[in-house]
Amino acid sequence: MKQYIQNNQDRFFEELFSLLRIPSVSSKEVHRPDMFRCAERLCELLLEAGADCAQVCPTEGHPVVFGSRIVDPSFKTVLVYGHYDVQPVEPLELWKSNPFEPEIRDGAIYARGANDDKGQLFMHIKAFEFLVREGKLRHNVKFIFEGEEEIGSPSLAKWAAENKEKLSADIILVSDTTMISETVPSINCGMRGLSYVEVKVTGPDKDLHSGHYGGAVANPINVLCDMISSLIDKDGRITVKGFYDDVVELSREDRAKLARAPFDLDEYMNFLDIRQVKGEKGYTTMERTGIRPCLDVNGIWGGYTGEGAKTVLPSEAHAKISMRLVPNQDSETITRLFEEHFKSIAPDYVKVEVTPHHGGNGFLIPISSEAYQAASKAMTEVYGIEPVPSRGGGSIPILADLQKILGIDPLLMGFGLERDTIHSPNESYLLKQLFSGMEAIALFYKYY
Amino acid sequence: MKQYIQNNQDRFFEELFSLLRIPSVSSKEVHRPDMFRCAERLCELLLEAGADCAQVCPTEGHPVVFGSRIVDPSFKTVLVYGHYDVQPVEPLELWKSNPFEPEIRDGAIYARGANDDKGQLFMHIKAFEFLVREGKLRHNVKFIFEGEEEIGSPSLAKWAAENKEKLSADIILVSDTTMISETVPSINCGMRGLSYVEVKVTGPDKDLHSGHYGGAVANPINVLCDMISSLIDKDGRITVKGFYDDVVELSREDRAKLARAPFDLDEYMNFLDIRQVKGEKGYTTMERTGIRPCLDVNGIWGGYTGEGAKTVLPSEAHAKISMRLVPNQDSETITRLFEEHFKSIAPDYVKVEVTPHHGGNGFLIPISSEAYQAASKAMTEVYGIEPVPSRGGGSIPILADLQKILGIDPLLMGFGLERDTIHSPNESYLLKQLFSGMEAIALFYKYY
Repeated sequence: MKQYIQNNQDRFFEELFSLLRIPSVSSKEVHRPDMFRCAERLCELLLEAGADCAQVCPTEGHPVVFGSRIVDPSFKTVLVYGHYDVQPVEPLELWKSNPFEPEIRDGAIYARGANDDKGQLFMHIKAFEFLVREGKLRHNVKFIFEGEEEIGSPSLAKWAAENKEKLSADIILVSDTTMISETVPSINCGMRGLSYVEVKVTGPDKDLHSGHYGGAVANPINVLCDMISSLIDKDGRITVKGFYDDVVELSREDRAKLARAPFDLDEYMNFLDIRQVKGEKGYTTMERTGIRPCLDVNGIWGGYTGEGAKTVLPSEAHAKISMRLVPNQDSETITRLFEEHFKSIAPDYVKVEVTPHHGGNGFLIPISSEAYQAASKAMTEVYGIEPVPSRGGGSIPILADLQKILGIDPLLMGFGLERDTIHSPNESYLLKQLFSGMEAIALFYKYY
Repeated sequence: MKQYIQNNQDRFFEELFSLLRIPSVSSKEVHRPDMFRCAERLCELLLEAGADCAQVCPTEGHPVVFGSRIVDPSFKTVLVYGHYDVQPVEPLELWKSNPFEPEIRDGAIYARGANDDKGQLFMHIKAFEFLVREGKLRHNVKFIFEGEEEIGSPSLAKWAAENKEKLSADIILVSDTTMISETVPSINCGMRGLSYVEVKVTGPDKDLHSGHYGGAVANPINVLCDMISSLIDKDGRITVKGFYDDVVELSREDRAKLARAPFDLDEYMNFLDIRQVKGEKGYTTMERTGIRPCLDVNGIWGGYTGEGAKTVLPSEAHAKISMRLVPNQDSETITRLFEEHFKSIAPDYVKVEVTPHHGGNGFLIPISSEAYQAASKAMTEVYGIEPVPSRGGGSIPILADLQKILGIDPLLMGFGLERDTIHSPNESYLLKQLFSGMEAIALFYKYY
């Protein structure tokens, strides 16, 4: 495929950039028309690449793109999953170039979605195109690209259940994760689940002058800080009642296996410019993101946040809080436990509201499976070194749902790198990874 | 003066509204021209009311308005202080009418500054006008109106020191505070000081994907919450080292005197729609705002605060924190103690910055003074009941400075009410208080 990439490189850039230019931010209502434009553009690309059919399928939320090429019903079928929606781009002032005007700098594409997930799903379309044009496709291939992954995939599970037959396949192939490093390929064999909530703490029913009331009336920001602070104890454990009940402790053996993945703590801290890591007592950094749950405040706001000073004792304080879950923890149960706990710790002098945003369960993939072994061979051929099995800290909640609804295991061949800073300003994707990914995917079809 | 008010009411509204329409928000650079406009308008009003001279005096910040009428050097001189700058108006969506387009509803004027302090300083101009026109003025009167009270009066102290002679007087008369209630007049005989800082907590040097890093890297929002939470202990006492060192404990007798002011806790809680008050153990609600210091978060922000969900582990978290101080606590010392303390409790895995905003000291006024007694008589005549001495929770830091620089005591005849919600949306000022205030001020000149 190397030669094919070289011959078509300019066209590839044009096509990928046409996707990246569409601001398909799923969480913002104003981008609804962009979601449709992006879905339609994907259909065009699928058809040009060799799909028999491709269609924009409406849902209650943003549309799903479905496309397929059925070569021979007796062949194995690969169902490629990806998502065309992206995260918001704020804070805009930290971007070095326009997030929706892709730029190539220092061997990487810079744009929102360059990696997550437009860049990665694009590799699948091009590997497929290569196999079709070279007459080498010996599988049936189906594509589903959703537009709601970044907001918790509220519509895809329902759509998948209604289109179960259409989606029948042997494996769900996904590139939406990272490798350990440029030189250490890895395959994700497990991901964390997610529970995401928003909380609101209300004190007095109006903003007050902090001089007149300060000291006598509970300040909802101070109270929110107290409440958040109490959610994690001094050992880094989450205090929500029942939170760990379903967490399966890994055996010493399994932990040793995962510890084989190379990891340099100093390099990690240097990359983040921090002097110390912090997490649950008794676990390594890789375990803390791989096999242990966690709780993070993703956003907080309240009172006067503008220029200068305002002496206000505000009426309300807000926070967005998410918990990453490990396999066997149920997202809905955890959301319920959080809500109960958070309300139970609210002092009398405030009112508390908890609104669930979205969530999903984690999952595990057997290393012994045929698909995992094919992916491993393919990546070994491209990178010259056998990939290590890893556990991803992030969440693709919909995959656990699809696994359950369709009865098909997912396989996570991700080519992102930490340096890509997805979800952050200046998201990027190395050209080297883009092209190596295409090669590895094409080889996967060879070995699967 | 009642008759005079009735005869001139419409003109009074026109004049006051012309001040309220100018958005003189001192904390925002964009309003610099409005500050000048407002200062010039005040000069016009002073001259029309009968001042011999009135001028806009430039400072390094917003200008000071000075005006005077010298009747006879042997007469007593009253120096009226007020401020024409106002607080920001955000959140705008909570205003029922445009904050800079005054409206009269249900017997009150609604606008930013309706009370604080344009409405209250206006009473002084009109009482002065009445005495001049009726030929009853037996005092020399001087006015200083500053444009920086809401941002800590950074320029006035210097200007006052340079114009000490010009400002010589027997009393500083101020209306920038509240009465206990519509039916319980009170005179402030002490105010709290202020120390206002902004803090920034930085974790990793970029926003991170909370799935990839959550659980292993300290989240600056969680850390900020921990730090803020630790600033007040379970007894409601501030934990900043040395914070209480200079606080003078009031005698049992003095506390009993202050407790004579009527106060209904249920009414207070009903007004604020809260089920419980909260504050320092061992003190009443009125003591907590009157004679005890406190610490409040006035604003907090970090991470994703927009619509929907974003799974970000942010790089930074911020807060604006203010401390109200009691007489004998030094604002600069407290700011330094806070900075030292806050940095000392910062864990290794974050960086912390503390930026002082502004501050000032509290002060006390003797009840036995001639001026206090004159004000008491004047208010008794207007309200039919003797005013009680009270302690204001708010701060007018510049008054302590002026007292020191000029060697003149301030006297606080405030006519605001709690219901006016100054600093908040829908600030208002009751017409009844506006007119009673004018009467009481005119009578003050009679008895002083």
